[in-house]
Amino acid sequence: MTDVKTTTIAIDAMGGDFGPAVTLAGAALALQRRPDTRFVLFGDEDAIRAVLKDHEALRTVASVRHCEMSIAMDAKPSQALRQGRHKSSMWRTIEAVKTGEADVAVSAGNTGALMAMAKFCLRTMAEIERPAIAAIWPTLRGESIVLDVGATIGADAQQLIDFSMMGGAMARALFGLDKPTVGLLNIGVEEVKGQDEVREAGRLLKESNLDRILYHGFVEGDDLGKGTVDVVVTEGFTGNVALKTAEGTARQIASYLREAMSRTWLSKLGYVLARGAFDRLRDQMDPRKVNGGVFLGLNGIVIKSHGGTDAEGFAAALDLAHAMARNDLMNKIAADLRSFHERMSNAPVKQEEKDEHEADIGSASV
Amino acid sequence: MTDVKTTTIAIDAMGGDFGPAVTLAGAALALQRRPDTRFVLFGDEDAIRAVLKDHEALRTVASVRHCEMSIAMDAKPSQALRQGRHKSSMWRTIEAVKTGEADVAVSAGNTGALMAMAKFCLRTMAEIERPAIAAIWPTLRGESIVLDVGATIGADAQQLIDFSMMGGAMARALFGLDKPTVGLLNIGVEEVKGQDEVREAGRLLKESNLDRILYHGFVEGDDLGKGTVDVVVTEGFTGNVALKTAEGTARQIASYLREAMSRTWLSKLGYVLARGAFDRLRDQMDPRKVNGGVFLGLNGIVIKSHGGTDAEGFAAALDLAHAMARNDLMNKIAADLRSFHERMSNAPVKQEEKDEHEADIGSASV
Repeated sequence: MTDVKTTTIAIDAMGGDFGPAVTLAGAALALQRRPDTRFVLFGDEDAIRAVLKDHEALRTVASVRHCEMSIAMDAKPSQALRQGRHKSSMWRTIEAVKTGEADVAVSAGNTGALMAMAKFCLRTMAEIERPAIAAIWPTLRGESIVLDVGATIGADAQQLIDFSMMGGAMARALFGLDKPTVGLLNIGVEEVKGQDEVREAGRLLKESNLDRILYHGFVEGDDLGKGTVDVVVTEGFTGNVALKTAEGTARQIASYLREAMSRTWLSKLGYVLARGAFDRLRDQMDPRKVNGGVFLGLNGIVIKSHGGTDAEGFAAALDLAHAMARNDLMNKIAADLRSFHERMSNAPVKQEEKDEHEADIGSASV
Repeated sequence: MTDVKTTTIAIDAMGGDFGPAVTLAGAALALQRRPDTRFVLFGDEDAIRAVLKDHEALRTVASVRHCEMSIAMDAKPSQALRQGRHKSSMWRTIEAVKTGEADVAVSAGNTGALMAMAKFCLRTMAEIERPAIAAIWPTLRGESIVLDVGATIGADAQQLIDFSMMGGAMARALFGLDKPTVGLLNIGVEEVKGQDEVREAGRLLKESNLDRILYHGFVEGDDLGKGTVDVVVTEGFTGNVALKTAEGTARQIASYLREAMSRTWLSKLGYVLARGAFDRLRDQMDPRKVNGGVFLGLNGIVIKSHGGTDAEGFAAALDLAHAMARNDLMNKIAADLRSFHERMSNAPVKQEEKDEHEADIGSASV
């Protein structure tokens, strides 16, 4: 860990569709908002220096670490690991967290490669079987945390409980909540609905009566936008599909809206008059504002930015990184996991009741 | 089957949150649009007659069949089957398809009970292991079909292929396409991504080179709203979460929009001027227009309407029922399945290549 008065962020300067032009401009923006930030920039030194000369304030708080290679956006994880271990800008950005040179690592590089390298370099926490990626989800009540949105496919009951703990810790660190509410994503709210793993996780969360999270029960897809709970837990396949479906639906409606407002001169005039309202709406729907997937369950914090984002979007990922490091996410997670495991080792484990008719389990309400 | 010039729809008049008041008013609306429709109404005769007297045209084309009980909206499927078999309005509505009294059955009753009864009464088709529920999804290109949105959790490769065939047949019946495009929902478009079952289904669909559907490959959550393919195939848990997530996102944005437009007098004025545009938008986003989940894979067509819909929404489910019956969905499905199985029984089955690094499979792009 670095000096207690500053937060140091390691940046994979070469990651993303636009490399240093966006990552460094994003860092400059984030620095304006958080002057206590220090940066370590990994990548091609010439390319970084060329952009850095336009960002004077950033230059004074950034160290540059030359890396001879960077990971392609379309590299397979296995290939990235084979070719880029120890020497790529992505690897060394992550490694800076391991060595303690930085408090948190941020990359806009490819997700699969970043997760593979982060697992290999940082290793998963002792109490955790598998990492998760947590996304921040804008809701009618504010923001929620949704995980896993794509780290791994499938999750057993214990892994879903681990995700609940980690998501809860992140909600406490990010939203400043004492006891965030946690829901398990399912296809109905009744106890008999859903996959065995989800029902088993629900039963265990209910019984363990945790003091750091408030288990709400099952939630459904439409609860995501409502913000019914602070943390929504699911396995990576469903979480990823839900996230992209929501993004796609938002773009679809924005397209309908643009088309509708430009159809007649009256609607165009209405649009001009209500411009402030539309700007506000665009702002609320701006995906850049919630940019940043947090890798949870590793011995260190790594944050994935969208590859195609601009400086404003990358700055949002850096803001998130700053908040996670500042609010001591790692220790919150460790403490929560310890507390849960202590409780469960004292509690008697009941056998799941299996006598419900199969028909009650399968069908979702649509 | 009934007279070739008319289509007969069996209606569970008691289903849904409002019973005959909505189901019969919906039937009256649908009849205006499709005067060649005949109805068989199942439920409490007095309750039906009381509403029917306000719908003269409907009265002349409807038969009433008294049923002594109806299934509660919150009944468990097992309980509904035990108590309502043979005598409930839901059961007898489905049975009318089995006996040939009706061409198609429609209910706004509870999904789990309806699926359990439909499976029990009609049985799954000989070539099909498990039924699916298909939803119509509004897209930027028009409409797509998405299945399974909640009939059963999980699906192996063969079941995903069955869903592809059935969805393709439905697209041909409903959209009049010769060779609809079919995509498998996944967390990335690369062949190494996703669950084993999804990758195996993709390989088989690619190799079988079918003449009735065009296999597109993998699609992601945001392809749903884009309308990338005519038919999107997934297992019931993911499909249900995706459907409800999209509905929730649409409601969330509508709420943002209402709030933004009522903030200042200028935005209110803009709203008044652009009212036509907003009406058009509301129309495009109207969930009632795409009301109706089609149960596929049974020996007969059953359509589930939203329980909370109004007469307009229930009429949309009846329109869909009419189209499915008129365009001979059942025979299209049977012919497609036959064709696929003939092809596959002649094709050599290659062993899936398993040597890809595990890391390539797990991670989604987020």
